[in-house]
Amino acid sequence: MTPYRRAGASRSPAHPGRQSLSIGPFEPELGGYLPEVSLTYETWGELDETQENAVLIVHALTGDSHAAGAPDEKYRRGGWWDPMIGPGRPVDTDKYFVICSNVLGGCSGSTGPASEDPETGYPYAMRFPVVTIRDMVRAQKRLLDRLGVRRLAAVAGGSIGGQQALEWAVEFPDFVRKAAVVAANGALGPQGLGMSEIGRRAIMADPDWQYGDYYGTGRRPDAGLAIARMAGMMTYQSAPGQWERFGRRPATRPALYPEFGGRFEIESYLHYQGRDLVNRFDANSYLYLTRAMDLYDVGAGYASHEEAYSRIRAEVLFVGISSDWLFPASEVRAAAEQAKEAGADAAYAEIESMNGHDSFLKDWDQMRSILGPFLSA
Amino acid sequence: MTPYRRAGASRSPAHPGRQSLSIGPFEPELGGYLPEVSLTYETWGELDETQENAVLIVHALTGDSHAAGAPDEKYRRGGWWDPMIGPGRPVDTDKYFVICSNVLGGCSGSTGPASEDPETGYPYAMRFPVVTIRDMVRAQKRLLDRLGVRRLAAVAGGSIGGQQALEWAVEFPDFVRKAAVVAANGALGPQGLGMSEIGRRAIMADPDWQYGDYYGTGRRPDAGLAIARMAGMMTYQSAPGQWERFGRRPATRPALYPEFGGRFEIESYLHYQGRDLVNRFDANSYLYLTRAMDLYDVGAGYASHEEAYSRIRAEVLFVGISSDWLFPASEVRAAAEQAKEAGADAAYAEIESMNGHDSFLKDWDQMRSILGPFLSA
Repeated sequence: MTPYRRAGASRSPAHPGRQSLSIGPFEPELGGYLPEVSLTYETWGELDETQENAVLIVHALTGDSHAAGAPDEKYRRGGWWDPMIGPGRPVDTDKYFVICSNVLGGCSGSTGPASEDPETGYPYAMRFPVVTIRDMVRAQKRLLDRLGVRRLAAVAGGSIGGQQALEWAVEFPDFVRKAAVVAANGALGPQGLGMSEIGRRAIMADPDWQYGDYYGTGRRPDAGLAIARMAGMMTYQSAPGQWERFGRRPATRPALYPEFGGRFEIESYLHYQGRDLVNRFDANSYLYLTRAMDLYDVGAGYASHEEAYSRIRAEVLFVGISSDWLFPASEVRAAAEQAKEAGADAAYAEIESMNGHDSFLKDWDQMRSILGPFLSA
Repeated sequence: MTPYRRAGASRSPAHPGRQSLSIGPFEPELGGYLPEVSLTYETWGELDETQENAVLIVHALTGDSHAAGAPDEKYRRGGWWDPMIGPGRPVDTDKYFVICSNVLGGCSGSTGPASEDPETGYPYAMRFPVVTIRDMVRAQKRLLDRLGVRRLAAVAGGSIGGQQALEWAVEFPDFVRKAAVVAANGALGPQGLGMSEIGRRAIMADPDWQYGDYYGTGRRPDAGLAIARMAGMMTYQSAPGQWERFGRRPATRPALYPEFGGRFEIESYLHYQGRDLVNRFDANSYLYLTRAMDLYDVGAGYASHEEAYSRIRAEVLFVGISSDWLFPASEVRAAAEQAKEAGADAAYAEIESMNGHDSFLKDWDQMRSILGPFLSA
C-alpha cells in the first residue's frame, strides 16, 4: 500500500465509502455469545508501509461511521467530525489512514439488537447480550487487525466515543500511541445515570416497544425514543447556552403535538430533535448504548482506577468542556490527574464554551487548536 | 375571634384539620370559566382582632395543604414544612394564624382537572382551563377574604410556592407585608422548561392517559407520570448531592422493572420516587401545575419585569440555593436585584447546600436562620 498523496487540485482523501467486515464470533465480557459480528466502517486516506499511521475516530451515542465528508443528501451537515478530518486538518488524511466504525450494538450497519440472530432467523431485540465499552473496543480491535493496522497513531472521540478512546489506551496499551478523550472520563456520574435511565424508561414504557420485539410489527416505540432523545439533548447543552439560544421565546415552528398552554422554543426544539432521531435510530440500540455508557468504569476488572490507568502507555489528552454537565469539566480534569498520578502520560485541556457537552461537535476552532497540536506533535 | 394562646403543657396550635370552602365561580386569566371553585386548606393558630396576623404558606408542585403536623399514618414525614411552623418556630403559631391551601388546579381537595365539571357531570380532565400562578394567587385571595383575613403578615413558599409568594406581592401589594420567595424567581429558565416538558410528554405519550379522560376507565397513565416524576426529581437535586447520596453504587432495593444490565442506586431511587407519586397524585394536575410554573412571568401583563416589581409594597426576601439548577441561585439573586432596582424593599439570602432545589424542604437549620429573623423582624 502506498500512502495517500495530494494530487493537483484534488484535496479529497481516498474514501471507498461505507463498507462492512465480519470480525467473526464474539463473546461479550458480561456474558452471552454472538456467533457472527460484522462492523460497518468508513476510511479516509491510506495506510502506509509502516501500518502504524492509522487514526481511529469513535462516534458519539447516535452517530455512525460517517465522520468525514461534505454535506450530501443523507448527511445534510456532512460528516459529524468533518472540520477535524481532511488534508491539513488536525486528523490529517494526507498523513493518516482514518477509520471510523459504527459501534457494536449500534444500528448503522454494525451488529446490534436490530440484527438478525443467525440461530433463530429473528432480530435479537432484547436477546442481544449487554455489551460494554470494552466490548466495543475489542470489536474495533479485530476490525483494525483485519484492515492490517499494526498500531494506532491515535484514537479520538467524544462522550461515549471518549470513553472508548480511554478504554483503548487501557485495554490495548501497546497498540495506541495517542488517545484524545473528549468530554468523557473513567465513569459517568449519578446525574448522567439518572438522565440516561429516564430515557430508557420512556422507551420501555411505550407499549409499541413490545419488550423489544417491535421489528416487523408495523409499530415502533417512536414516542418513547423521542422522549429519550429529549432527555439526552438536555444533558448535551448548558443552561447559559439554552438561555442564549432559546431563552423563554415562544416556538416558531409548527407544533408536533397538540398545544397545551402555548409552546416555548426550547420545547419545540426538543420535539423536533426527538422526531429527528426516531427517523434514523433504533430504540433498542439506544437502550444498549446508553447502558454501555452508564456501565463504563475504567477500573472494572482491575483493583482500582489507578491500576487501570497505570496500564496506559499512550499519551492521553483529556479534554473537558467548561459547561458540560453530563461529564463535568471538573470530573474530566480529575480523571486526567488520576491517570497522571498512576504514571500515565496524561494531560488536560479545557474548551471554554456555553455549548455544553455538545461542544466537541460545535466548537471547531477550540477543538482544532487543542487536538491539532496534540495529534501532530 | 381570640388569638391562640399556649395553655399549660400543650404546645399544639389550634388546628381544625382539613377543610374546604367554596370561593364561587372563577375566570382564569388566559380564558375559560369555572362555574364553581372550592379550595381545601388547613390552618394553625388563630386569627387575632387585627385580622392581620395571618401567614400564608404555599406548597410546592406535588405538595398539599398539610404544611404542619407530626408524622402520622397518612403523612409519614409529617407536614411538609413542619420544622418551620409551630410555637416558637419561624412561622410562630403562637403569633400567627397560618393557612396553607391546596392550589387551584391541584388534586388534594381543591378544584382541578380531576374535579367534576358541574355542567357535564364528568371530570374536567383536559377541558379544565389553563391556570396560571396569578390565578392560583387570586383564588387564594378569595379564600383569605372569606376567612376574614384583612392583610397577610407574610406569605412564604418554595419553588412553585415561591413563584406564588412573589406574585402575591405583585398582584396584591397592599395585602402583603412580607413575602419569602424561596428557590424561585420571576421566570423559569429554558433548562427548567425543557425538563418540565419531558415530564409532560411522558404523561401524554402514555396511552393510558387517553387524552386526559382516564378517570373511571380503570387505567391511569402511571407509567408516564412516574417518568415525569423521575425527570422532576433530577431537577430537585444537585450533581454533588447525588454523588454523595448515590454515587455509582448498585441498587439495594428490589427492582420495580425488569433488570437490564444491572441497576444503580440512583435509578432505583428514581423508580421508587416515581411509584410513590402515582399513588398520591393526579397526572392531569401534574400537567397543569407544571405548565403554570413554566408560564409564570412576573412581568406578564405589565410593560416589563421592572414595572411589575415596582408595584411591590411588601418586604421581599428572595432565597436562593447554591446548588439549585431548576432556579439557579444566580437567577434568584438577579431577581432580587431587579426588584430592588425597581424600588422594592427586596433582599437576597442564600442557602449553602448540596441538596439542590429541594433544600427548602431539607436544610432546616439554614431555612430557620434565614426565615426566622425575616419573619419576626
